[in-house]
Amino acid sequence: MIDIEVLHRVSTTLAERKAADPDSSYVSGLYAKGTDTICKKLAEEAAETIMAAKDGDRLHLVWEVTDVWFHSMVLLSHFGLGVDDILAEFRRREGVSGIDEKKSRGTN
Amino acid sequence: MIDIEVLHRVSTTLAERKAADPDSSYVSGLYAKGTDTICKKLAEEAAETIMAAKDGDRLHLVWEVTDVWFHSMVLLSHFGLGVDDILAEFRRREGVSGIDEKKSRGTN
Amino acid sequence: MIDIEVLHRVSTTLAERKAADPDSSYVSGLYAKGTDTICKKLAEEAAETIMAAKDGDRLHLVWEVTDVWFHSMVLLSHFGLGVDDILAEFRRREGVSGIDEKKSRGTN
Amino acid sequence: MIDIEVLHRVSTTLAERKAADPDSSYVSGLYAKGTDTICKKLAEEAAETIMAAKDGDRLHLVWEVTDVWFHSMVLLSHFGLGVDDILAEFRRREGVSGIDEKKSRGTN
Repeated sequence: MIDIEVLHRVSTTLAERKAADPDSSYVSGLYAKGTDTICKKLAEEAAETIMAAKDGDRLHLVWEVTDVWFHSMVLLSHFGLGVDDILAEFRRREGVSGIDEKKSRGTN
Repeated sequence: MIDIEVLHRVSTTLAERKAADPDSSYVSGLYAKGTDTICKKLAEEAAETIMAAKDGDRLHLVWEVTDVWFHSMVLLSHFGLGVDDILAEFRRREGVSGIDEKKSRGTN
Repeated sequence: MIDIEVLHRVSTTLAERKAADPDSSYVSGLYAKGTDTICKKLAEEAAETIMAAKDGDRLHLVWEVTDVWFHSMVLLSHFGLGVDDILAEFRRREGVSGIDEKKSRGTN
Repeated sequence: MIDIEVLHRVSTTLAERKAADPDSSYVSGLYAKGTDTICKKLAEEAAETIMAAKDGDRLHLVWEVTDVWFHSMVLLSHFGLGVDDILAEFRRREGVSGIDEKKSRGTN
């Protein structure tokens, strides 16, 4: 089993970058450009994930899903949130009705 | 710090659902409908994430990012992959050049 | 050459549906549900367009692009806009520098 | 009523650019980069449309929808299709059951 703490390390580093010079890193630049730029990146990575899936290219798929997770963590961090908030929500869903909880949510 | 193992539990449950009756759960139904349906859900959740961010609604944002992660895990599972593949890729990026590794990838 | 006026007829009909009972048609229902629902449909159709392109399925591609145009016209109509606004913008770009006008916009 | 023929002029120009040097224009470059790059642009413009709608910024919305239509025309052209194929599909839907034809398509 892989060292899952990597997600906490990424989340912590992302939070630290918020105080950094916008030119000092890719992520600091994203924060400086703001919500729309981060969201656009997320849309782009989601599209690339879909294309990798359509290609049936598993290596590419792993790469793109990692990019989706990474940029969604940048977005969370931009709003003062982090990976723990996502893990807590997964925990909450386990508590409610397992991973099929969504089923009960109707048309959404 | 939140119990991060929830991601492994979700990943394991998703893998188990692949053998289940398509009518037995939301996720089993997604597998049966195939790649396009799962990808469409991912696109939808990414769009909802963007809209939650634009609303500045942090609770909604956490909910939608969780949905993005969840459906990307369904997609991974559909291709015989799991959360460990994503964690390994995050680890690899740490090794290469930190979370700003993307910076060196040029225009992509 | 196909009767291009169909776009004006669709645009006019969409505007008329804004005053209709939400239950009276698919489009009236979209207006009633509001911006987020219309945007979600647009994201979904864009994803389906991408998947049709990846399949190299030309008939499906035409269908999905039509859906993208249709739902973007619903969105425009929701904001009191119509196809003429899009045509005017295309005209403006012709005037400025041809269809490659975008080129001059830098990285966006 | 705006000169609707602008769409045919754009469509014709896009078809002509397919034979041009990849470096000669923005569009020729897109063709050369291929389906994935064009699709990624489409996803990006769809996301920007959604964000303009969320901002309630009508001028920006017109701009972004025009970009969505433009890039979907590039995609069509890449597959040997054009605006007439979209207009024909809109005509067909008028014939079948009006613009609410979609309603009868069930869950899609």
